Amino acid sequence: MINEKMYALGATKSKIRELFEYGKELSAKIGAENVFDYTLGNPSVPCPEKVTSVIINEVQNPSIHGYTSAQGNLPVRKAICNYNLKRYGFELSPELTYMTCGAAAGLAITLKAIISSPSDKVLTFAPYFPEYKVFAENAGATLITAPCSEVFDIDAKLVKDVICSDVQAVILNSPNNPSGTVYTEDALISLASLLQSKEKEYGHPIYLIADEPYREILFDGAVCPFIPKYYKNTVICYSYSKALSVPGERIGYVSVSPSCDNAQKLYLAIAGAGRSLGYVCAPSLFQKVIELCVDEVADTSIYKDNRDALIKVLNSSGFTCVNPKGAFYIFMKSPTPNAEDFCDYAKTLGLLLVPSNSFGVNGYVRLATCISPDLITRSEQAFIKLGKHYGLI
Amino acid sequence: MINEKMYALGATKSKIRELFEYGKELSAKIGAENVFDYTLGNPSVPCPEKVTSVIINEVQNPSIHGYTSAQGNLPVRKAICNYNLKRYGFELSPELTYMTCGAAAGLAITLKAIISSPSDKVLTFAPYFPEYKVFAENAGATLITAPCSEVFDIDAKLVKDVICSDVQAVILNSPNNPSGTVYTEDALISLASLLQSKEKEYGHPIYLIADEPYREILFDGAVCPFIPKYYKNTVICYSYSKALSVPGERIGYVSVSPSCDNAQKLYLAIAGAGRSLGYVCAPSLFQKVIELCVDEVADTSIYKDNRDALIKVLNSSGFTCVNPKGAFYIFMKSPTPNAEDFCDYAKTLGLLLVPSNSFGVNGYVRLATCISPDLITRSEQAFIKLGKHYGLI
Repeated sequence: MINEKMYALGATKSKIRELFEYGKELSAKIGAENVFDYTLGNPSVPCPEKVTSVIINEVQNPSIHGYTSAQGNLPVRKAICNYNLKRYGFELSPELTYMTCGAAAGLAITLKAIISSPSDKVLTFAPYFPEYKVFAENAGATLITAPCSEVFDIDAKLVKDVICSDVQAVILNSPNNPSGTVYTEDALISLASLLQSKEKEYGHPIYLIADEPYREILFDGAVCPFIPKYYKNTVICYSYSKALSVPGERIGYVSVSPSCDNAQKLYLAIAGAGRSLGYVCAPSLFQKVIELCVDEVADTSIYKDNRDALIKVLNSSGFTCVNPKGAFYIFMKSPTPNAEDFCDYAKTLGLLLVPSNSFGVNGYVRLATCISPDLITRSEQAFIKLGKHYGLI
Repeated sequence: MINEKMYALGATKSKIRELFEYGKELSAKIGAENVFDYTLGNPSVPCPEKVTSVIINEVQNPSIHGYTSAQGNLPVRKAICNYNLKRYGFELSPELTYMTCGAAAGLAITLKAIISSPSDKVLTFAPYFPEYKVFAENAGATLITAPCSEVFDIDAKLVKDVICSDVQAVILNSPNNPSGTVYTEDALISLASLLQSKEKEYGHPIYLIADEPYREILFDGAVCPFIPKYYKNTVICYSYSKALSVPGERIGYVSVSPSCDNAQKLYLAIAGAGRSLGYVCAPSLFQKVIELCVDEVADTSIYKDNRDALIKVLNSSGFTCVNPKGAFYIFMKSPTPNAEDFCDYAKTLGLLLVPSNSFGVNGYVRLATCISPDLITRSEQAFIKLGKHYGLI
């Protein structure tokens, strides 16, 4: 027999993947220069030179490709904790840090470690990264969402309306994909206060999973608060995909805050979930890369330049959006309530945009800015046509 | 809350891992030269030089670390199918091949793709690799085992006694960890015939999962039959950990035989399971390495030399074992029925051996031969003392 749920997950292409493939077909038909693909969140900058030189150097070591312990080599776990201490003044523990094949793996195993009853729920904030639902369901839970404020910040009052005693974990993604919002310190303080009071009321911990692969991509002096400082039951899921621009290499970590309730037990459950899901260890060469490049960041300034250039084009075409303070996305208001219809029309002009339905909200579209700058220039006329079609200019 | 089952999996160290850590402590106490660690199946030979040169060359490509499609880049999937066609005369399909983070990931997602009811069972042959139970249970099934013959070959008659209509998948691991057996062609033909008749009787496919990471490590002219030739409903789970001696890099593949019932549907379910378990893609640099080094094999001749040298030492100490024809393990008879007691005593002599209980049978111990040859020489006196203690010499 074949598992119908897994089949459905494999057979149903994500909207983003579908658009990506449509774009390839369209390019073949009308020429790649007439297709303006804003769909894919694939970091477009090279990795830091040091990453390359470390790899070239380390592959001379005959034991570099060997198995590591399941939680990862101790030196890389120490390097990560030292870095976070230096940068955020918060002491994580190497003994509570677990190397993973990227943040997706980290989220999948952390949820699996926490969820224990079919009635359990995982809460996140809409708009949200669509795979959260997949990972929550794999762990046996249901994903529920709280809406964000009009500027896509967390609003504790709105969270209060949906939270219930079945919520065991909350996923927080800042800077956010798809909105580009960096949740403000005030919003996080209110959220932490709400969760703490709910923990008391419900009589069980509510783990806050900080999924922060974009934390190094910030604009205009924005600050991304370090969650363990604000809320004791925090688990960090980090990926180097964006900071080092190595998304295909699948390297990241989970770190259980030492102040967590049952920190050691949760850490062991995460290790057990890693084992259960077939994660033997994180890739060994890249564990060494992280150890030696932990404080490197790829030059991501192009994402800001692209943001500025694209917002200019969008505004001059009559569209509006909140100015994102991080990550590499712009979340633009659709001029019609049905964003899917809007995206379908945009496609006819060669503009590939992702409708916000994929992210759990209606009426917006996501544009990725991890693109070549000339794409923005080349697509300007298409955006103007689009704005005119909808009577915006 | 914390998932108690995941906690138990993380907290209960595997016997092998426990012994490995005991060995480290013992080394600190009595000196590494007095500890003889035969526990860990960590390939001890360097990777082929071409792997190193490909890495050094490919890291110059700025897009080498980018996301690949979830099933992996097409060129590497094609290279794998071409290699298997050339080597085994059997045509696999790139469209049914899915790159994975090693064989463990492959097994975890393949089982998740097949298992759909809590009554489902997965069958394997004892002795077996202990994580099979973990992966089967993660998929929601129960693992059941059929005993092997006295020389650890598959015996279809013994399988007939345990197979039942709940069995949806059978895991076959040849050359076998821990026994080193290469299942014979005759045994596989009998097994295939039994499974085919049971498929008819039960009215559903029984997928045979060929987990064969050791298939390139064969001795004395042994031949490892290519399972898809013998049984149509075969899914291959392969890892390059041993063939290229890169176990920490987590690179392998799943390939659904094109002759499988519902091959396309099963493949999509595998893709869905990969997505569900957080496997975004297999590491991108190593996908390129496999594409360009698909027909390379590390120099594994030392495993045969070690096997020969260690068997000589064991025999001269009074111990007996079946001569393994592949992989890098010796499965030796314990002189007392309780192999755990035997291993505990061996530890006092600095000899770290894995009791066979971990592998689902009693009365044996596993010795890994992926070791430095001088370990065998250095440990000879300890084996002699051990043999004398048990009155074998």
